[in-house]
Parts: sequence; structure tokens; C-alpha cells
Amino acid sequence: MAAKNAFYAQSGGVTAVINASACGVIETARKYKTKIAKVYAGRNGIIGALTEDLIDTSKDSASAIAALRHTPAGAFGSCRYKLKGLEQNRAEYERLIEVFEAHNIGYFFYNGGGDSADTCHKVSQLSQQMGYPIQAIHVPKTVDNDLPITDNCPGFGSVAKYIAVSTREASFDVASMAKTSTKVFVLEVMGRHAGWIAAAGGMASDKETDIPIVILFPEIAFDRDKFLAKVDGMVKKYGYCSVVVSEGVKGADGKFLSDQGLRDAFGHAQLGGAAPVVANIVKDGLGLKYHWGVADYLQRAARHIASKTDVAQAYAMGKAAVQFAAKGHNAVMPTIKRVSNKPYKWTVDMAPLDKVANVEKMMPENFITKDGFGITDKCRQYLAPLIKGEDYPPYKDGLPKYVRLKNVAVPKKLKNKFEVK
Amino acid sequence: MAAKNAFYAQSGGVTAVINASACGVIETARKYKTKIAKVYAGRNGIIGALTEDLIDTSKDSASAIAALRHTPAGAFGSCRYKLKGLEQNRAEYERLIEVFEAHNIGYFFYNGGGDSADTCHKVSQLSQQMGYPIQAIHVPKTVDNDLPITDNCPGFGSVAKYIAVSTREASFDVASMAKTSTKVFVLEVMGRHAGWIAAAGGMASDKETDIPIVILFPEIAFDRDKFLAKVDGMVKKYGYCSVVVSEGVKGADGKFLSDQGLRDAFGHAQLGGAAPVVANIVKDGLGLKYHWGVADYLQRAARHIASKTDVAQAYAMGKAAVQFAAKGHNAVMPTIKRVSNKPYKWTVDMAPLDKVANVEKMMPENFITKDGFGITDKCRQYLAPLIKGEDYPPYKDGLPKYVRLKNVAVPKKLKNKFEVK
Repeated sequence: MAAKNAFYAQSGGVTAVINASACGVIETARKYKTKIAKVYAGRNGIIGALTEDLIDTSKDSASAIAALRHTPAGAFGSCRYKLKGLEQNRAEYERLIEVFEAHNIGYFFYNGGGDSADTCHKVSQLSQQMGYPIQAIHVPKTVDNDLPITDNCPGFGSVAKYIAVSTREASFDVASMAKTSTKVFVLEVMGRHAGWIAAAGGMASDKETDIPIVILFPEIAFDRDKFLAKVDGMVKKYGYCSVVVSEGVKGADGKFLSDQGLRDAFGHAQLGGAAPVVANIVKDGLGLKYHWGVADYLQRAARHIASKTDVAQAYAMGKAAVQFAAKGHNAVMPTIKRVSNKPYKWTVDMAPLDKVANVEKMMPENFITKDGFGITDKCRQYLAPLIKGEDYPPYKDGLPKYVRLKNVAVPKKLKNKFEVK
Repeated sequence: MAAKNAFYAQSGGVTAVINASACGVIETARKYKTKIAKVYAGRNGIIGALTEDLIDTSKDSASAIAALRHTPAGAFGSCRYKLKGLEQNRAEYERLIEVFEAHNIGYFFYNGGGDSADTCHKVSQLSQQMGYPIQAIHVPKTVDNDLPITDNCPGFGSVAKYIAVSTREASFDVASMAKTSTKVFVLEVMGRHAGWIAAAGGMASDKETDIPIVILFPEIAFDRDKFLAKVDGMVKKYGYCSVVVSEGVKGADGKFLSDQGLRDAFGHAQLGGAAPVVANIVKDGLGLKYHWGVADYLQRAARHIASKTDVAQAYAMGKAAVQFAAKGHNAVMPTIKRVSNKPYKWTVDMAPLDKVANVEKMMPENFITKDGFGITDKCRQYLAPLIKGEDYPPYKDGLPKYVRLKNVAVPKKLKNKFEVK
């Protein structure tokens, strides 16, 4: 069988290590010349496939591709674009197959979270229905850590490390200031549905470095009085306290804490964050001086403090995806299987996409302490290896040297254009 | 002359490297045994001196003191407490001298910004008036970089590096997302009076890595229309744009941009930041999707990404302070003198405190581009060496290993207590 080309695309919110997965895909594909001719990347994710805007990754040197391993964000561009169901928008799936056929693409590597796993699964189903053979492999990625089956998701370990390190550092700061000034520091972190990232803030404190940290999980309805009592107790005991609040925290009324119906002096609605809301609650309820921060993109882009475990796993997922494809697998996703905790050992495993798509993995209940404000030892045991090890990027003139690829377009072959709605 | 003890205190907002200065002071003092007996640190800054709450740094091992070099924030506690003028509150100064005398303190090392330089100066004046000999040496520290005479201030280089690195990383992120989602990322940084830290955001972009960055300096009155036109132009050219906004940006009316009279649904006043305000302006004015972050304490506590130049200079300032004292100097501050840019060379110099106290160094006008939204080559030349080099702390289990000293109290000798108001 003659070698076919591969299509690779990045989907959804990017991470510090999604390019490490891309690196794993491309470097490994280059070793399977008899099966995989070229890797074409979608410019801006799946939209690149729909609009036949493909990038020829073979135009980039081995060293440029290798540098993807230490470059954050999506080197080919990502997109937030969810393909609808087969019945609702069959035209999109047919267009994908049309583009794949035109460019002799036999492998579909889709690097994303739950939605992309679903898309990937549908592509493999349709290719069977339409009689155009394509092997669809999903490469897991999400800072939210909410994919099922896999022990953890590439991207999460690095954001967890960033939040743990930052919470420890900011806590040292507020501890220094507490005597006459700031007593409470509030840090808002990502995680709209699950508290995995907020939980990582709890890792800032350990036996050797005891730090008072109050975590607000999206899994636990916000209770103002209970929260204030907790902070008050911490400040009385330690003199200060750090609060790590998930952006997704909701009150008992089901409304996001960040959604306070803020209006400016002219009555215009304003969007705020959860951190300033929590800080204002601390000030009103306890009269304590506060500072607050919102990590936002900084946390998921922070390749400078990426977890070594995470980088290795992200690369391994990309590599395994290609190896699975070369072995003839279809509609699967490589997964990380935890073999042991001490020492931490993991291997690459495989999951069928129909078991992955549309399943969200939440924090286990026994990962959150009974009072709802902290993490248990079980949670620590789970998180510890994921944030372990440093994998610094190279620097030039004080700044990390991140690669930008040439991203040379593959000449179009189709005459008809496709409008992405 | 018999050896006298030294007093060292940390003042004001702490930094990633103020402990490196403490390390320089203590390690160097330990080499001058014939002149300096022990270094006593003020617990929570100058308040520790006023309340006779002194820490005996000799109780900590050489390795613990050495670890201060890589530990952020203030190891002995800092405070925001400005001593009033000599005439307004002579009692405070007299109390200081009383405590110093009781503990045989002949050296006063005060590690802080402009206010502390002023206090340090007054202490030396009063010691002369009161006939109690003390050598007062100010050790420069401030992330705001606003002390005069010294080329730059320890603490600034590391926060500048953090902001430059974070802006580069977040810009890679928004560039990946821009096709279908976020087009503008807004990052709020410190600097209430001067735009030094905001300027550092501009370093994220250079010849090899061109990034569209719009900087909002506190020196330039915010002009909504001009700003929107600038962002619009950037997004049209690059597809995305990053905005670095100083917390101190004001409108033409002289009001802080962050002070928008925000009220929640119940009409309660809420404190927000400048970043969400700018983000809302972008949304209202251009209809673009945005994300925003507020670095707050994260930026000044980020020892994990400290500048090597900054760490070396912070240490050198502490070391020089002790050397100056040993040579008999009084009412002076060690300074950093830039000798050359290429290669960057600097030496330690000395400034008299009466020239330092109450003088604020602003950004030179020719550091800001004519349109008011960027930094000039002159500014780049100034900033480049300050963010250069990495000086990673040691890690254990994925987290930086920061030291906590024993902070053993020196037994009190005075019977009268002093109330700090």
C-alpha cells in the first residue's frame, strides 16, 4: 500500500504542551515514511480542513519541529469550532472527506478535548459510511483534565504546576505583608466545570512548607458565611491566608460568583471575575486588606514553568497516536495509565473513542476535604507526580526562545470553496 | 573599637529578590566579625525595632542564610509603616535609638524604596543630634524602579522579566485562538506612578519574535478613541493583539481607569481592576472577544523566573551596604552604575541619602514611542540587560524549595513597651 498523507489539527483552548504533542506526531510520522508521506496541519484547527487551508509541515526543518517541544500555544492555530451531529450538518463531514481525498489523506490526528474526541469519532464513522478509508486518532489535550479513561490529560500538569508554584510564591509575599497590610490574597484560576486546577493550588502547601490555603471548587456551592469563617480562622491562626478560586464557582442559586450584575457609573453592564468578587466579600465580611490576581492565559501558556512529566506525556501521546495509526488502529485515543505512585510510573495505553466522546471526568469526592475548602492526601498523591520536574525552554536575551514555524500552505486542489458558519 | 551589632529591616512591598539583599548583608557581615558582632533583623520591618521585636539571624545556619538568595518575599516580614517627620513624631525616632542602644546596635541597614531611604536618612540625622553613633545605610529595593541616582533598582529586573515572559507566552496563546475566539488579551501590571513595569511588557516582542503589543502607561492620559484605533489597527494587521495596562493608568479627568464606580446588583460599590475595564472598552468599542489577567503579587513574587542580573545586583547591594558600613560610611545608599551596554557592565557606586530621599525617578519621555503605546529602542537598550539570565531556585517534588528561617527572637531588654499607631 502506498504511503498516505496525515492530517493533524489542534482544537480548543491551547496549552503549554500541545505543541509537544504536535512534535511527537510529526517527528514520529517522519520515521514511518513507508506508511505516512507528509503531515499536513490544519491552519486554525479543523477550519483549515474545511476551507482546504492546509500547512505542509515537511517544509519545516527537524530542528524547528523539535523546538515545538518547548513552545507553548498552538503552532498551527487552533479554533473553537464544534462540528455538529452527522444528521444536523452532514455537509461539513462530507467536506472533510472531500478535502482528505483530494490531498490523499489517510490519517486524521485530532489534538483536543472532549468535543474534539467526539468529532474525531464521527469522522471515523462517516469515513466508513462513505467508503473513504481514514484512520481517526484522537490526541488528548486539555488543561481541564476532564477526559475519561486516561489517568490525566496533557496540558493539565503544567497548568497545575504553574498554579502551585504561583500560589506558594504569592503566599510568601502576603505572609511578609500581613502585619500591617494585605492579609488575604485571592487567585482566580481556570476550570469552569471541574476543580482540578483549583486543587493544584493546594499543592503549594506541604509538610515542609505549611501555608494556609482556602480553595473554592466549582463542585461546591459557595457559602458566604462558611467561607468567611474559614478565612477568619486561617488569618487568626497564621496571620494571613491565600484563597484559590475557580472561575466556575457558583452560589447556591446556581449563578456564577463572577456574574454579579456589575454596572459602571453609567449603568452599563460590566464583566468581572470571581477573584474581585471574593476579595470584596472578604473586605465586607471581615474588614481585611486584600490583593487579588487573575491568572487567565498566563497559567495555560506558562511553558517557562512547564512540568517535565507533562511535557514527556504530551510528546508520548503524539508519538503513540502515530504508532497506533501505523499499526492500523482507528477511532482510538492514546491514554496515560498510572502504573505506580512511588516511584511514579506510567505507560501508554489505548481507549476506544466511543468510550471517550461526551464523557466528562469530574474530581472524585474523596479528593476534596470534608469542609469543602481543601484537598485530601488522596488528591495530593494523584497530583504530585503530574507537577514533578522542570523542563525549561532555551532562553535568548532573557526571554524564552519559542519557535514560529514557516507554516507554508499546501496548494489547493479543490475548486469549490466552503463557507464556515 | 569593640564590634557592634547591626540592625537590618525590610520595608514596603516585597520582591522576588529582597531576600537576596538580606543574604548579601548577613553573609558579608559574618565576614566582618571584628566590626559587626551580630545581625539583628526587625520582625515585620521597622515595627520590629519600635516594639523591640528583634530576630537573631546568627541562629540560622550558613546554608539557611544562603538559601535566602533564591527565596522570594521578605523572610523577616516587611511592613507598610512610614515614620513621620522628626518634628511630628520625634518619639518614634527616639524609641529607635533607645532600642538600638539597648542592643548595642551601631549599624542600621534599611532595605526599601523611597520612603525608607527618607527614614534611613532621618535616623542618621537624629543619631547625630542625640549623640548616639549609628551608621545608617539604605539598601535599595523596589519593583517600581523609581529610586534616583541608581541605574535601576533590585526587584525591578525580575518583575520586568516575569512580565516580558508572560506577555510573550500569553500572546502566543491569543495568536492561536484569534481565528474563531479571543482576539485581544489584556494584562494588568503593577506601577501606580511610573510605567517601568508596563514598559517591560514591550520586551515580549523583538526582531525575531514580532508581537503586536499596546502598552498603557500611567504617564499617558488614557484616550479611548486613540486606544481603540490602535487596537483595531493591530488586530487588522496581525489578527490579534496584547494590551499591557499599568494599574495606575488614568483618564484625562485624572481618575484611575480602574475606578469606574462599579456597583453590584444590590448597588454596593465594588473594586475592580484596570484590566477588566480595558477589556470591556475593547468589547464595547470594537466588538472583539477578549481575555484579561491581573498579575498582581504573582509578578513580584515570581522568584521562579527571576532575572540573573537582578539577583546578582540585589545581593551586591546588600554586600556593598555592609562594606560601606565597615569603611565608616553613614547616610549613604549603594547604587548600581551602568558602565556599558554591549557587553552590559555595571559596578557598585554610592549615593548620599539626602540626594535619594523623596526623589522619584520617572520614565524618560524618550522611552515611550510618540503614539504613547510602545517603547523606543532607547528603552529596550535600558531594559534588555536587566531581564537577562535565569537564576532558577532548587526544586523538590515539583515545587521551588524556598527557605523559612527560624526567626528566633532576641531577648528583650527594655521594660517600657512602645505602641505602634
